[in-house]
Order: sequence, then structure tokens, then C-alpha cells
Amino acid sequence: MEPKTLFILIGTIAITLLAFGFAFFLHRWVQKQPSSNEKIAKVGQLIRNGANTFLRKEYIALAKFAGIVAILIFLFLPSPVWKGQILDNIIMTLAYIFGNIFSALAGKVGIFVSTSANIKTAEAAKKGIRPSFLTGFRGGAVMGMAVVGASLLGVALIFLITGMGTALLGFSFGASSLALFAKAGGGIFTKTADISADLVGKVELGIPEDDPRNPAVIADNVGDNVGDVAGMGADLFDSHVASLSAALVMAIALGGDNPALVFTFAAIGLFASIIGVAFSKMGKNDDPTLALNLGTYVTTAIYAVLTGIATWLFDYNWRIWGATIIGLLVGVVIGLTTDYFTNDARRPVRNLAKASESGPAFTILSGVSYGFLSVLPAMIGIGLSALGAYLICEPLNTPDHNYAMFGVSMAAVGMLSIVGMIISNDAYGPIVDNARGLAEMGDLGDDVVEITDKLDSAGNTVKAVTKGFSIGAAGLTVISLLFAFITEVNTAVDNLTAEGVTGLTKFKYFDILDPIVFFGILVGAAIPAVFSSLLMLGVDRNAQRMVQEIHRQFQENPGIMEGTSEPEYDKCISIATTGALRELIPAGLFAIIATLVVGFIGGVNAIGGYLLGNIVSGLLISLFMSNSGGLWDNGKKYIEAGNHGGKGSVAHKAAVVGDTVGDPFKDTAGPSINTQITVVSLVASLLAVAFLTWNIVSLF
Amino acid sequence: MEPKTLFILIGTIAITLLAFGFAFFLHRWVQKQPSSNEKIAKVGQLIRNGANTFLRKEYIALAKFAGIVAILIFLFLPSPVWKGQILDNIIMTLAYIFGNIFSALAGKVGIFVSTSANIKTAEAAKKGIRPSFLTGFRGGAVMGMAVVGASLLGVALIFLITGMGTALLGFSFGASSLALFAKAGGGIFTKTADISADLVGKVELGIPEDDPRNPAVIADNVGDNVGDVAGMGADLFDSHVASLSAALVMAIALGGDNPALVFTFAAIGLFASIIGVAFSKMGKNDDPTLALNLGTYVTTAIYAVLTGIATWLFDYNWRIWGATIIGLLVGVVIGLTTDYFTNDARRPVRNLAKASESGPAFTILSGVSYGFLSVLPAMIGIGLSALGAYLICEPLNTPDHNYAMFGVSMAAVGMLSIVGMIISNDAYGPIVDNARGLAEMGDLGDDVVEITDKLDSAGNTVKAVTKGFSIGAAGLTVISLLFAFITEVNTAVDNLTAEGVTGLTKFKYFDILDPIVFFGILVGAAIPAVFSSLLMLGVDRNAQRMVQEIHRQFQENPGIMEGTSEPEYDKCISIATTGALRELIPAGLFAIIATLVVGFIGGVNAIGGYLLGNIVSGLLISLFMSNSGGLWDNGKKYIEAGNHGGKGSVAHKAAVVGDTVGDPFKDTAGPSINTQITVVSLVASLLAVAFLTWNIVSLF
Repeated sequence: MEPKTLFILIGTIAITLLAFGFAFFLHRWVQKQPSSNEKIAKVGQLIRNGANTFLRKEYIALAKFAGIVAILIFLFLPSPVWKGQILDNIIMTLAYIFGNIFSALAGKVGIFVSTSANIKTAEAAKKGIRPSFLTGFRGGAVMGMAVVGASLLGVALIFLITGMGTALLGFSFGASSLALFAKAGGGIFTKTADISADLVGKVELGIPEDDPRNPAVIADNVGDNVGDVAGMGADLFDSHVASLSAALVMAIALGGDNPALVFTFAAIGLFASIIGVAFSKMGKNDDPTLALNLGTYVTTAIYAVLTGIATWLFDYNWRIWGATIIGLLVGVVIGLTTDYFTNDARRPVRNLAKASESGPAFTILSGVSYGFLSVLPAMIGIGLSALGAYLICEPLNTPDHNYAMFGVSMAAVGMLSIVGMIISNDAYGPIVDNARGLAEMGDLGDDVVEITDKLDSAGNTVKAVTKGFSIGAAGLTVISLLFAFITEVNTAVDNLTAEGVTGLTKFKYFDILDPIVFFGILVGAAIPAVFSSLLMLGVDRNAQRMVQEIHRQFQENPGIMEGTSEPEYDKCISIATTGALRELIPAGLFAIIATLVVGFIGGVNAIGGYLLGNIVSGLLISLFMSNSGGLWDNGKKYIEAGNHGGKGSVAHKAAVVGDTVGDPFKDTAGPSINTQITVVSLVASLLAVAFLTWNIVSLF
Repeated sequence: MEPKTLFILIGTIAITLLAFGFAFFLHRWVQKQPSSNEKIAKVGQLIRNGANTFLRKEYIALAKFAGIVAILIFLFLPSPVWKGQILDNIIMTLAYIFGNIFSALAGKVGIFVSTSANIKTAEAAKKGIRPSFLTGFRGGAVMGMAVVGASLLGVALIFLITGMGTALLGFSFGASSLALFAKAGGGIFTKTADISADLVGKVELGIPEDDPRNPAVIADNVGDNVGDVAGMGADLFDSHVASLSAALVMAIALGGDNPALVFTFAAIGLFASIIGVAFSKMGKNDDPTLALNLGTYVTTAIYAVLTGIATWLFDYNWRIWGATIIGLLVGVVIGLTTDYFTNDARRPVRNLAKASESGPAFTILSGVSYGFLSVLPAMIGIGLSALGAYLICEPLNTPDHNYAMFGVSMAAVGMLSIVGMIISNDAYGPIVDNARGLAEMGDLGDDVVEITDKLDSAGNTVKAVTKGFSIGAAGLTVISLLFAFITEVNTAVDNLTAEGVTGLTKFKYFDILDPIVFFGILVGAAIPAVFSSLLMLGVDRNAQRMVQEIHRQFQENPGIMEGTSEPEYDKCISIATTGALRELIPAGLFAIIATLVVGFIGGVNAIGGYLLGNIVSGLLISLFMSNSGGLWDNGKKYIEAGNHGGKGSVAHKAAVVGDTVGDPFKDTAGPSINTQITVVSLVASLLAVAFLTWNIVSLF
């Protein structure tokens, strides 16, 4: 390894250690905040136990799955163990296992922190909005630092030890296959609980949200943690790892200081996030939304400046810096346009709220319509950033070196560079949401509930921005994974031809007019639709089971409603857990198996088309679902704030229906699709050689 | 022209005349059926007047639009009038205008027949289900014969007179741009009326469907005619013309007897439909669904046999016959799988009905989930038929002749060959639906209403099959239009190079990895989402206006509800008309303008990607919307048949919400997307030379 690369790697590892230290400091700071209220502590303990139970059961189930996959990887990847180097197969297997473990740890740490920060945040709200904000935000930041630190450390160590692109893809596959199930399972759990609690509590009985008499209320709070914190952490961990791996696969093929460049830029991203988090505080104007967004902008600015300095200092090419910055800026723009469609000061939410006066059908129609409309700016944005990054770097191309594709992957790295800050903002959401519930259940008084309400609402607004950001980043990442796939196939063709295999040709282009490619495109486009369908049907079935259980409890024990008897919270948690695990497997397996079927039937051409179709329709559907879900959520909140008749009005009832539909859209199916695309892309890259050398079409 | 081609053309024209004669015979037969009931005659007259008013206003608006486009075509196509042959520009302009006129006539004839057949069908139901079925079906068949006859006659005449591929595309563009607005306008009209009538009538007041006290009830019946008959007729006219034009553009480029082959197969399709229609009667088992489906299968079989004989007789290549039959068979398979998702004897409808017990949110979630699931078989089917047709014909390829692409276009021709029968089935639906309403409004008694109910339900079931068929056919057609686009570009490159223009290269492939293509794909994929969003927002706004009007009438005139005073039906019709015209323009223009923007910025590469993205996402979204809409409709009907509590139950109320959401899905946005894709593909082909020679990217 070159001294420069080694130096950068050591620096990168040092920064990840700094991030871990900072996370530990933040964690200790949060722990030191007071928590005196016994009732809250008790409920908080229930939530923590529920979350841990779910995570344990989920990880046990996934460990079995991962074990089987690990054996398959050992046997077949990078080449069949009886043909190639056994050491390579061991490395691949270990990389895959580490990917799983790191991803699981990220989720575990998140749960550990969020289930204590929620109590402290509720308690701090007694002192005012600013200390409460800081507690919630710093709790979220522990997660942000831990996730990005773990991702970068893992990638750096694997590169340092093996230097192999395939091993990085193996690590990334481990991370994303776990994320797929964590996101899907957590998503099913959280929405099962949320929908059932709302349906019986708010709609049927008219008791408030988070009323402790509702048997599903603890499950609902557990869901916020396992779905939004653990699932989201695993998801962004996976995107971050995937973007770095894709960039590094190409950087390794390009050689020179390109791998060093990838690490430099990634490490600066983490460092900028550390600074951004450290200085994030609520200003005197008491606006939590502003504080969160300001943190993001400051981090972005620091990143742009520091990477510029690094480019000058280490003599990297300015064009690549440009590609990275394009990705970052477009990410911000996508976030802002997403905000337009879900912000209650804008027309879409306002019109939706007004349409709700005519009943739930109009709420749904408005939401679907604006949801479809909202995909346009993001699709154009992703397309423009890929195009821009490509064109900027194209002049660097040589016959053997495709810098243009590398530029696109660096745009993805750029967009994901400030992910430490994004996760901090994102994890803040469920923490303050939980704190709001705890404040209500712990009878902390209306003032305190109001403060947590305000913090919660800021969390929802910022969520739209961060969500747009992560879908955009996922889009660019999978485009660069498509390039990584091509790179892998072409490398394999070179190697196999050198070994004497004949008849293989490199990809010079991917022809839409090739009917095999076209066939792949059509099938690939259907996958995200089917995948999200399976997840939503899972939520639907599971919620119906849970509603039955809640009805049973109220019927058999009238004391619950009178407040004299405690509901059996654990029964609801158990139903959500078992159901989520039962429903997540088919959806996850479907996506993977469909990829294998298409690949072994149609070979690399079909898979190329399949990846493209998958990316295009995946982006479309996930943008649609995330945005319409957010729109319904905020439409309901807007009405609850007293507009169009406020709570209890016809419009409100209609808006609740919209919100219930939107819940699995935005928190189960929509964000899981990101992970689904990544997993499918990685499976394709890992099996590139297998699809190339053995497929049914080539037999004819 | 070769004698063989001339002979076939004359034969084709003879068969179209036979079809017109047969249509006239059927029309006279329907007219001769008795209609004595004065009340029905009066209501029938109201419906006819409303439909004609709408059509007149719509056509006036569209004539202005078409006039502007005609001027632009005269000035610029096929090449700027000051540069090329003025005669060619005149031909193009006339072809475009004739496309518009033929398409408008098809809609007009449909309305003329359906608004009298509905009365006769209601009246015939007094004599029993079999005469009533025959009246409804033959009324629909007039439309089927007229539409396909007009399409084939128009294409044959233009080919006979000009022999120019571009003129055919111009004719096709005229047909489809009118269809775009007719479908969108009719779709907005019909769903505005339907939703408003249901919402106020069924939900708020609890009066039955088609109750004459409802001020929107006539508008609702008018809507069935202008949306389902005129709109659908224009839509399938457009698909049929487009599939023939795309095949002919390639056949002309291939030369030889290939144009003759296209006409032979198309003429046989029409002939088979004539026979199928002539022998369609209800059997002794009194099952109207069976009768309709049997007609389709018989026509399919006749078509397969006769085209086989023709291939042998005229010495065409058997491989092309094979490609055509693949298209036809896959069309049937797609229809059957669509049926699975919307048939109330199957799991999706059953599960949806059960989920409705938990409230409207679950109805919506089930429908969206199964709707997403339903795209898979159709996408695979379209992909497989394109792949199969391509591979079968690939051995015929020579360096200069791409028979494989021609094979795909012939699969589309095959799938659309029996469209005469399909339209007959489809137009049967709104006729019996209207008849049901007339029977209720005319107090023909419960027995008669029950018979028309049964006929109506068969219409809904068959609709699923025919709709699957038409989306599949549209899919294959646009794929072949993509090939036609390539053919046009390559021909233009040859011509321009011969004229001394340098630097132009033919398409050998369409590279996904070209960032301009990729950018085009992402933008193109967003278009159908935005287009359907604009249409649904239009319905939403328009329905809100109409609900206000209905409320106003009931408030100001209490006599309406008591039955002592007649509501002002025409006010509702007028609102639906004005609103539909106001809302359809932005959606239609958006799709066309977006194509121009992408083409003039990114050139032919961007447009190629754009077409691909448009096709893939268009198919996905239209399948999703059509199927989930059908599912909600039949779920509601299943509950109304007495399941899960029947009418008035919680499940029924939830199902009504689902049905209201599904209405614009399946009758406005979903089917309009087909036309949108066709229009965009044709614009791209017509402007191929312009995009090739002038675009912003090429300036750099």
C-alpha cells in the first residue's frame, strides 16, 4: 500500500475513534440529566424491555438466515471454494458476517440510547424547551456518531486488511441484508402497533393518543424505537456502507490515490458532522426546526470547505471534488422540495386538509395525487446530479479508466457525507415522540406536553427533509452500484479470458433495445411494487390480529377503561413481534430470489436491465409512498391544530383515515424499498461471475 | 406498388366496408327493438342531450388546439416548409387532421348508438335476460365495428395514397392527441359526476344509486357514455392505429411484401371480430359473462387459423406469424391474471371485503397492496411476449434488415387484432349500466332491475379482462413505437449524411450507461405519475364544485327530496362539462411539453431514455391504478351482495370510500396513461429529425 493511502487510512480510523469518543461523551451527558419521576421510569422501563425483547427475537431469527447465507458465501464466493483460493472465500464470509454484526450493533446502540434519552427528554421539558431539545438531540446524535463511525471503521479495516473490492461488497451485502429485514421487520412492528392503537383508541373509543388505558400504547412506543431508531439506523448504515463500497470498487479499479480520496472525503464528512452536532443548540427564538436545519446547513458548509482544502493539500483532482459537491447540493435541494410537499404552510397540505371536509375518499385522492406529483423534482434532481457528476469527470477518462462513473459514485458519497448529522436529526424524532407519550402517561402537566408536542412537530418537519435526502442518496448510490456491477463483470471477463475461457465479451454498453435487457427492465420494475405490497399486506394482517386482541382485553376486563385495572401491554407487544417476524421473511426473500431467477435465466444482460428497472421504479414508488405518507400525517396534524373544524370534525375523521393509510406507506414500505434496491444491486454484483458463466439463455 | 400489396390493400378496404355495413345492420336491428315507455324515453333523451352537449363543447375546444398543432405541423414537419417539399408538409398536415376527425367520429358514433341502445336494452329486459343481453351487446358491437373499420380504412387509405411512414405517424398522432384529451376529459367528467352522485346520494342521504331525485344522476349516466364509450373508443382507436403505424413504419423500411403482411393480418383481425360478433348469443345457462368471454375466445381461435392459412397462401414467413400469435396469446393470459385480482370469487376481493370491516383505511391499504401485486404477471407477460417475438424473428435479420424489431411490432398487432371484439364487450358495459339506471328511474319493476343488474355485473367482470388486454396491447405498441423511433432516427441519419451533414451516427444501441440516456429515463419515469396526478386533482376539484351544487339544490328546493319537484339536472351536467374541459388541458399539454423540453435539451439520446422511462413507469402505474380500482369496485359490490353485513354496514361504508378512490384510478387516470405514453412516443418519432439536428447538449 502506498504511504499516502496508509496515512489517510490511519487518519480515517482516528476520526472514527474520535466519533466513538464523542458518542460516549454525549451518552454520558444524556445519562447525567435528572430523572426523578417514578411513573415515567416505570413506563420507560416497559418500553425498553419491549424493544429489547423484539430486537433479541429478531436478531435470533436473522442470525439463522445469515448463517445459511454465510455458508453459501463460503462455498461459492468469490469463486467456488473447490476451484479457487480458500482464503478468499474465508475473507468473503467473514466480511459478510461482520457486515451483519456491525449493522445489528448500530441498531442495538440506537435502542439503548433512545430508550433512556426519551425519559430524560420528557423530564427536561419541565425546565423548558431548550434543555429538552438539547437532551433529545444529543440522544439522537449518539446514534448518528455510532452508526457512521461503525460504517467507516468497518470499511476502512476491510480495505486495510484485504484491499479487495469483492470483500467490501460482501461487507456491504451483510450490512444491507440485515438492514432489509431490520427495516421491514421494524416497519411492520411499528405500524401494526401505531395503527391498532389509533384505530381502537382514537377512532372507536375517543381516548387521547398515548392514553395509558390503551393496551397497545406501550407497543406503539416500542415501535417508534424499533422501527424509526433501529430500523432507520440499519438503513442509513447500509446506504453509507454501500455508497463507500461502490466508490471504492471503482477506485480500486482506477488505482493510484483514488481509494485514499474516497476515505479522505468520507472521513471529512464524519468530522464535519461531529462539529455540526457539537455546536447544535436552540437559539433564543425557541424554534426547534430552525435549530435542526441550521445544524445540517452548517455541516454542509464545513464539509464543502474542508474537502476543498483536502483536495488542494493532497493534490486530488478538482473535478472529483466538483462531482462530490454536486451530489451534496442536490441532496439539499431534494430535501427542500420534499419539504414543500409535506409542510403545513404550503398548498399541498392545506388543500388536503380542505378536501378532507368532503370525507376520507377525498383525503386519499389528494394525498395520492400530490404524492405522485412530488416525485418529479426528486427524479429530476437525481438525474441531474448523476449527469452533472458524469460530465464533470468525463474529461478525466482514458481508454482504460472510467472516471465518469467514478464521479457519479463520488456524488453519492458526497450526498451521504453528512449522514452523521442526518441520523442525529432523524433519531431525535422518535426520542421526542416517545418523550411526548411519557409526559402524557406520567401526568407531567399540559405545559410539558405542549413543549414536547412542539419538539415532536419539529421532528416531523425535519423528517421530510432528511427523508428526501436519504432517498436521493440511495438513488445515487444504486446508480453507482450499477456501475460497480459493470466493473465487476468486466474485471471477471478479463480474468476468465486470461484463464482461457472463450466467448465472453466486456460490457461496452447496456443496450435498451436488446430484448433480454428490456425483459429484465420490465420484471425489475415490478419488484419494488410487489415487495412493498407484501410488506403492507403484512402490516394489514398483523394490525387486524392486534385490533382483535385489544377488543378482547376491553371486553374481558372492563376495569381497563375505568382506569382501575392495568391492560396487558405485553400481549400486544408479543403479537406485534411475532407477526412482524412472520411477515418480513417472504418480502425479503422474494426480492433476493427474484434476482437469482432472472440472473440464472437471462445472464448479466437481463440482470443489468433488471437493476435499471428496479432502480427507476423503486425510486418512483418510495418517493411516492414517503411523501404522500408525510403529507397525510401533517394534514391530520394541521386539522388537529384547529383548522377545518379541528379534532372530532368530519375533516379530522377523514384525515385520520389518511394518516392510517400513510403510516405503512411512509414508515414501512417506502423506506424499505431503498434497502431492497441496495440488496438487489449487491446480490447482482456479488454473483456477477456466476450469472456471466452460467445462465439458461446462453445455453441456446 | 406491387400487385400483391395492391391486391391486399383492396381486400383490406373491402373488409372495412363490410364492417361498416355490418355495423349499420346491427344499428338498424337495435333501433327496431321496441321502446314504449315514455318516462324512460324522456330520461334517455336527457342523457343523450347531455352527452351531445359535452361532446360538442369538447370538440370545439379540441378543434382549436388541433388547429394550432396543424399549423405547426405544416410549418415544420416532416422538414421545415421553407427547406423541403411543400407537398410532404401538406400531406402530413392532412394526415394529422384526418387522424383527429376519424378519432372524433369514432367517439361520436359510439355516443349516438349507446345513448339509444341503453333505452332498448332496458326495455328488452322486460322480455327476459337473453333479448336484453343481445340488445346491449349488439349496441356495443356497432361501436366495435365502426372504430376498427375506421382505423383500418384510414391507415389503408393513407398508405395507398402516400406510402409514407411519416404520414402514418402523423395520422396516428392526430388520433392519439385527440384520444388523450377525449379520454382525459371524458374521464374527468364521468368521475366528477359519479363521485358526487354517490357521495351525496348514497353516503349522505342514503337514497339508492340512480334515484331520480339526485340532481347528479343524469350527469352520472351521461358520464358513462362520454367517459366509457366515447373516451374508451378514442383510446382503443388510437392504440389500434398506433400499432399498425409502428408496424408499417418498420415494414416500409424492410420493403418487400411486409406492408402487405401487416394489412393482411389486420384485416383478418377485423374479419374474425365480425364473425365473433355475429355469432355471440347467450346460451341456455343464462350466464352473460360466459357469452362475452366465449365470443372473445372464438374470435381468437378464428384469427389464429385464418392468419395461418393466409401465411401459407401468400407465402409469408411463419416466424412472423408466430410472433403475432405470441402477442395474441399473451394478451389473453394477461387478461386472465387481471381477472384474478378483480374477480369476487378470488382471494384479493374477498380479503379486501373482510379488511373493510376494520374501516376505510384498511380497504384502501388492501386495495393498494393487491394493486401493486397485480402488476407482476402483466409486466412479465409483456416482457415475455416482446422477448419471444424478438427471438423468433431474429434469425430473419440481415445487416440491413431488423426483422426482430418488426416481430415485436407484429406481436402488438396480434394482441390488438381482435380489438373489434374487445370494444364490443367494453361498450356493452356502459350500455347495460345505463339500462340499469333507466330501469330504475322508469319504474320497470324489481325483476327487470335484477336482470339489468346481472348484465351490468357481467360487464364489470369482462371489463377486467378487456382492460388487462388493452394495457398489455398498449405496452407492446409503445415498445414497437420505440423501435419505430429508432427506425426514424436511423433513416434520418442516412438521408442527412447523404445530403452532406456530418457528425451524425446511427443508433446501433441505446446505452443505459450513457448519463444523458439515464437522465432521460429518470425524467420520463416521473411523467406518468405527474400526468395522473394532474388528472386526479382535476377530478377532485371538479367533484368538490359539483357536491356544492347538489347541496345547494337540496337546500334551496326541499321539494326535490320529497319527489314533488324536479332537480336541475342540466346544472350538474354543465359543471361537469366546464370543469372537465378546464382540467384536461394542463395534464395533456404537460406530457407533450415535457417531451419537447427533454428532446431539445438532450437530443435523441435523452429522448430514447425518456421514452423507456415513460413506458416502464406508465405501464406500472396504469396497471396499478386500473386493477386496484377494479378491485375496490368489485369489493363494494361483493359486500352489497350481502357479505360482511351487506349494505349499510361498517364494511359497506368503508368499501364505498374505496370505490370512490378507485373511480378516478380506473376510469380517469389509469386508462389515460396508455394514451399519454402513445402520444409521447409519437411526438418523439415525429420530431426525431428536429431533436437529432438541434439540441442544447450537442452545442457543447
